[in-house]
Amino acid sequence: MRAAIVGGGIIGLSIAAELLRRGADVTVYDPAPDGTDGAWHVAAGMLAPGGESVFEVPQLERLLEASGELWPAFAAGLGEVGYDSAGTLGVALTADDVTEMAREWKHQKLAPLTGSQVRDLAPALSPRIRAGAYAPTERQVDPRRVVGALRAALDGRTEKRFVSAVSELEAEVVVVAAGCGTAALTGLPIRPVKGQVLRLRGEPGLLRHVIDGAADGRHVYLVPRADGEVVVGATQEERTDRTPTAGGVHDLLRAALDLVPGLAEHELAEVSVGHRPGTPDNAPILGTLRDNVIVAAGHHRNGILLAPITARLIADLVLTGETDPIIDAFTPGRFGCA
Amino acid sequence: MRAAIVGGGIIGLSIAAELLRRGADVTVYDPAPDGTDGAWHVAAGMLAPGGESVFEVPQLERLLEASGELWPAFAAGLGEVGYDSAGTLGVALTADDVTEMAREWKHQKLAPLTGSQVRDLAPALSPRIRAGAYAPTERQVDPRRVVGALRAALDGRTEKRFVSAVSELEAEVVVVAAGCGTAALTGLPIRPVKGQVLRLRGEPGLLRHVIDGAADGRHVYLVPRADGEVVVGATQEERTDRTPTAGGVHDLLRAALDLVPGLAEHELAEVSVGHRPGTPDNAPILGTLRDNVIVAAGHHRNGILLAPITARLIADLVLTGETDPIIDAFTPGRFGCA
Repeated sequence: MRAAIVGGGIIGLSIAAELLRRGADVTVYDPAPDGTDGAWHVAAGMLAPGGESVFEVPQLERLLEASGELWPAFAAGLGEVGYDSAGTLGVALTADDVTEMAREWKHQKLAPLTGSQVRDLAPALSPRIRAGAYAPTERQVDPRRVVGALRAALDGRTEKRFVSAVSELEAEVVVVAAGCGTAALTGLPIRPVKGQVLRLRGEPGLLRHVIDGAADGRHVYLVPRADGEVVVGATQEERTDRTPTAGGVHDLLRAALDLVPGLAEHELAEVSVGHRPGTPDNAPILGTLRDNVIVAAGHHRNGILLAPITARLIADLVLTGETDPIIDAFTPGRFGCA
Repeated sequence: MRAAIVGGGIIGLSIAAELLRRGADVTVYDPAPDGTDGAWHVAAGMLAPGGESVFEVPQLERLLEASGELWPAFAAGLGEVGYDSAGTLGVALTADDVTEMAREWKHQKLAPLTGSQVRDLAPALSPRIRAGAYAPTERQVDPRRVVGALRAALDGRTEKRFVSAVSELEAEVVVVAAGCGTAALTGLPIRPVKGQVLRLRGEPGLLRHVIDGAADGRHVYLVPRADGEVVVGATQEERTDRTPTAGGVHDLLRAALDLVPGLAEHELAEVSVGHRPGTPDNAPILGTLRDNVIVAAGHHRNGILLAPITARLIADLVLTGETDPIIDAFTPGRFGCA
């Protein structure tokens, strides 16, 4: 089986690696195979199946959970990629923030904690925090290391090339996994959703858990890495530019410092901007578009978490033409343009 | 007359250019003659003789005013360096901020304006601003352009060299103008005072005047350039590192957005860190240290404003051994280590 994968982001690479593992002849096409333009480069790498998106498409929740279960083995197969299972602490600053976050916690069936209880788990949290919840099954990973490991696994299978039409490629099956670029290649309604993300750096040990919080109406997550890096994200803006703005950076810093005052002395090491590939219902598009063309794109905020299940489902489709019916809710056809 | 100038920052270069103009044989020694490590590279370039430092050394106020009067001709001699005379608007957000800023305005004999009056002059200012004052004689300049012009004027007169002792140099007179590096060369008590500064970028025209304000206890200045850049400064920290911090950047952004909400959509184009060369009384050290060694350093927050008068006074000293008695308050001897 000769398969062409259009797009060398975390989705395209994960699919290609899975196909390679199952014996297919794979080529990945990407205009910048060593580049850092992908959404993965900005992503924090929270593996949080219980996120907010669950209120949109119920089937997405099952997909996120199923992919979360695949992550331990997926990470183990990649080597040291910062996979960490300390879990996530949800926190809320004001009474309004508690109201907002409590909906999520209830949905995830998490027991509410008082401010004092949550600070017992993470003493760096602000004394102003009123309430929290601990999600022990949420994980994190470093997406830059994941992509580095996938690129290494696909060494020699990647061609530097911008594909402007699927018909250019000679392969038995073409998988379009080009993120936002999928729109131009397929006509599918995938739009860029701008996200600004900060990377702070300081002494390791200030935080152990991922912090997922609301601070005076601002939603923010803090993802601490073992080396002292803390990723702070993210804005969600319906914009196509790649410009970090004064307002975006301010809002992230303000929320981060409201929740963890000790971050003030951390270095502001990086401000980065990426684009999540969003769809009308913000669930991914997975499945056959026509003949020998398969789409795996539009993962929006969940590209890192959904990489393993996307790889498995799409590899099944490529090699056998069939896969788990869980994919049925995500067909390209649901937008009436297949 | 052969003169050696140690230090190619704005002070060393201004002195060298003045000496050259008066016919001396000048060499500037700097370890990085094309570098951007100097305090000038971070400085916003407000030429504000009426700043806060006046409360410390009364004679400094006269020096600042005298240098301010030299700036129009100094700038004209350098070409296009962003010299602008739209003046400064002082603004205050809260009642406490008004109390704080009113001391400065009174000292400068500026008429207080209501919030509404100050917004008539600058409509981009927040409706929350309570009071202000207009200082029509304050100017601004772009320090990066000033140094660029001075470097061009001294082309061929600059030697890339780190001077570790004044005795290394063969010259009739040595002028030490090495900023914070002056301490190691002379034993004078000059310490680095860290400053973090932001550069925002957007459509020109949002602001016309320099804004010098207090926002909920945070002092900030906004210096708009003709090309749409807005410099936001500055933290003052008794630290030697060059690390931009989450807390420093947050405080600057918060104060800037409190005063001018429309800056939120501006690009956060640069975060830079510099060190002002501070002295125990935060006034500069100007004068003869011993024999043929003259010092011109420790300009702290006023290096840009004081460049022209420093150049004139030190060039007088080098060429004639005498100068205006205004210099007498700034001798190295006042710290008991001459």
